[in-house]
Amino acid sequence: MAIPDQVSAEPIDAAQRPVHKGRLEAFSDGVFAIAITILVLEISLPAGAEDELLRAIADQWPSYLAYVVSFSTIGALWVAHSVITDHLVRADVVFVRFNLLVLLVVAFVPFPTALLAEQLEEEHLARIAATIYGCTLLAARLLIYLLWTYALRANLVGPHGDREILDLTREFTPSFAGYLTMILVGLLFPFVAVLGYLFIAVVLMLPFGIERKGR
Amino acid sequence: MAIPDQVSAEPIDAAQRPVHKGRLEAFSDGVFAIAITILVLEISLPAGAEDELLRAIADQWPSYLAYVVSFSTIGALWVAHSVITDHLVRADVVFVRFNLLVLLVVAFVPFPTALLAEQLEEEHLARIAATIYGCTLLAARLLIYLLWTYALRANLVGPHGDREILDLTREFTPSFAGYLTMILVGLLFPFVAVLGYLFIAVVLMLPFGIERKGR
Amino acid sequence: MAIPDQVSAEPIDAAQRPVHKGRLEAFSDGVFAIAITILVLEISLPAGAEDELLRAIADQWPSYLAYVVSFSTIGALWVAHSVITDHLVRADVVFVRFNLLVLLVVAFVPFPTALLAEQLEEEHLARIAATIYGCTLLAARLLIYLLWTYALRANLVGPHGDREILDLTREFTPSFAGYLTMILVGLLFPFVAVLGYLFIAVVLMLPFGIERKGR
Amino acid sequence: MAIPDQVSAEPIDAAQRPVHKGRLEAFSDGVFAIAITILVLEISLPAGAEDELLRAIADQWPSYLAYVVSFSTIGALWVAHSVITDHLVRADVVFVRFNLLVLLVVAFVPFPTALLAEQLEEEHLARIAATIYGCTLLAARLLIYLLWTYALRANLVGPHGDREILDLTREFTPSFAGYLTMILVGLLFPFVAVLGYLFIAVVLMLPFGIERKGR
Repeated sequence: MAIPDQVSAEPIDAAQRPVHKGRLEAFSDGVFAIAITILVLEISLPAGAEDELLRAIADQWPSYLAYVVSFSTIGALWVAHSVITDHLVRADVVFVRFNLLVLLVVAFVPFPTALLAEQLEEEHLARIAATIYGCTLLAARLLIYLLWTYALRANLVGPHGDREILDLTREFTPSFAGYLTMILVGLLFPFVAVLGYLFIAVVLMLPFGIERKGR
Repeated sequence: MAIPDQVSAEPIDAAQRPVHKGRLEAFSDGVFAIAITILVLEISLPAGAEDELLRAIADQWPSYLAYVVSFSTIGALWVAHSVITDHLVRADVVFVRFNLLVLLVVAFVPFPTALLAEQLEEEHLARIAATIYGCTLLAARLLIYLLWTYALRANLVGPHGDREILDLTREFTPSFAGYLTMILVGLLFPFVAVLGYLFIAVVLMLPFGIERKGR
Repeated sequence: MAIPDQVSAEPIDAAQRPVHKGRLEAFSDGVFAIAITILVLEISLPAGAEDELLRAIADQWPSYLAYVVSFSTIGALWVAHSVITDHLVRADVVFVRFNLLVLLVVAFVPFPTALLAEQLEEEHLARIAATIYGCTLLAARLLIYLLWTYALRANLVGPHGDREILDLTREFTPSFAGYLTMILVGLLFPFVAVLGYLFIAVVLMLPFGIERKGR
Repeated sequence: MAIPDQVSAEPIDAAQRPVHKGRLEAFSDGVFAIAITILVLEISLPAGAEDELLRAIADQWPSYLAYVVSFSTIGALWVAHSVITDHLVRADVVFVRFNLLVLLVVAFVPFPTALLAEQLEEEHLARIAATIYGCTLLAARLLIYLLWTYALRANLVGPHGDREILDLTREFTPSFAGYLTMILVGLLFPFVAVLGYLFIAVVLMLPFGIERKGR
């Protein structure tokens, strides 16, 4: 597992000591996979709805919507994370810690998701829930971006050609504009903001090539 | 991890940029493993049944049945998924996104499972639960099939001989007939439909060779 | 991941088609790891015990005991499972399905564990819970044994010397005697049986060499 | 997966039989990843707080704090664990069992975390919760240290230079002093102790080189 990552044999500064990226990927994959899968646990069974089951199931639409939006968002974060580690030649000790910070926010997503699902139908409460939700997603995206910026500055990224790296970086920027706009929109129209978060996640996952051609 | 997957070094269209299939497999394995293991969390403890514990445990038979059927179904989906990625020479960016759509439905299965376990004893409600359950299983199977079709069309599959690929494709077709029939059956006899879903999952997991000889 | 497992290139019977053992190991590790980690979710918080918190925490001793016994048992099963796949030269399609049956029982263990933790203090109910618990552990151990027997018969095991294979097989036999005895003991003294299950799990995990020297 | 770990082919003592470290790493990564991710399940939704949602969310600060402290602590344990297995040339059967003991305590952390989150606001109860919490973290750290000590004594660690090994060992010692101090502090000021545990986790994760320069 990840044995060929370690290349340098000369004595180096401990802070830049290379780290096998294999376990970092395995652990990160685990956290992403669990965070994305336990989202379903937040969908509660329609309780006490013996005779109008179909209606009770339909009334839970905010839970299904929240599930789809959070699944897409964590999925898009995982895609960005795997693109980053694919480009890594090696990890260093700072990268490993930074990565834990990213995972701390990703693993937190199920909580604002459940909050949103609970409050989406009452507009006044939905505004609060949608704001907290949007800030969490923005924080996750921002940390992924900073992780990538760190990797570039610390020379952890291999020579894949300047253009591709530029594309990857450009990818991150419009997402912030999107999240910030939707957080503001959510203060007035929380439901629209939730659809916006879904839209951002889907656009972020569009194959990079197709997205670029659109410009 | 999956380093030998990337073969082409010439400049290629970004939409077909090869992707390491190692992390895709690790992440997918994680989601399948978690979805299949948290099924047990849906089996609630027999509550308030102090003096007739044995009877209360036995009365929960729909939970055990739903556990076995969903475990077998997710197991069969995982087998199909691992056969697909075994045949992949490489993944591309579209395949990665499509794969996330498959996982979105697989990770959702615990919810209709819990719904089914809750409602299986009352025939009227069981019909609704069995229909939702069957549609979820059908959607998962359909998406796995489309994932495989995409892999074939995008030339992601290595040269394993035409006959074997034909077999794999043929494998998918009868399962749709089975699921559609059982969804219709479940509108009248939900319990029969659940047994049918178990039967389909077991047949789908029969070693391909044996299944073929039976024809 | 596990690319070197596939050796034969000649046309072979589909039922014996070799399967990459990498994903089988990754998926199994996932299920074992999740089943062993969600055991902690069964330990409920001492509720409504505002002023006598320390006593309420101590009163939950059956939960802690059940956690330790089930953790040790699933741990011992995982050790046996990893010894088996370590000896595999390749997997075949039957092995993959059989392995899913083993995981179905392993992933079920958290339910009888929670049942046992709930009922261990009332002797009458504890007998029922301990019997169900013991039967589940016996079933898991039996299936692991049959998985190993199948691997031997289907020639999936590499040439590691007859003596070592004999030792591995001998390992499985006394555990059945132990489980059967404890299931009978548990009909009268459920608490003794639970300690017995812990003892069996610990003995099964003793390094094989030490165990053998004891004879 | 981890095939090159097994080097010796001569007959050896069964207790020192080398073990593939690949599955040990995969299984451990799984348990760490799940334990760290299910921490979020302990954060309950603010119930019955229809009109004062924002306040109810803010009132749950002990849950968020407990989440961050436990996430950091398990993260630091995972970093230490991955440094240990990175240095391993091979594992032996004793190491595998010892590792399970480490995981037993790591997987238990979500329970004292939930307990702490529940009781942190009432000072009398918080003292009890903080003590149990601190003892669990100390036990986990102690076991990781003993795991490393065993690996060194059993010659499982490759020749990475004496100085680096010395650093790693030195790393473990001050953490005990920290945990013991905080357990004592927590008997009087539980909130201070919890901040102390966060501080220890963050310091333990500081890149080793930076930490060393500080001395």
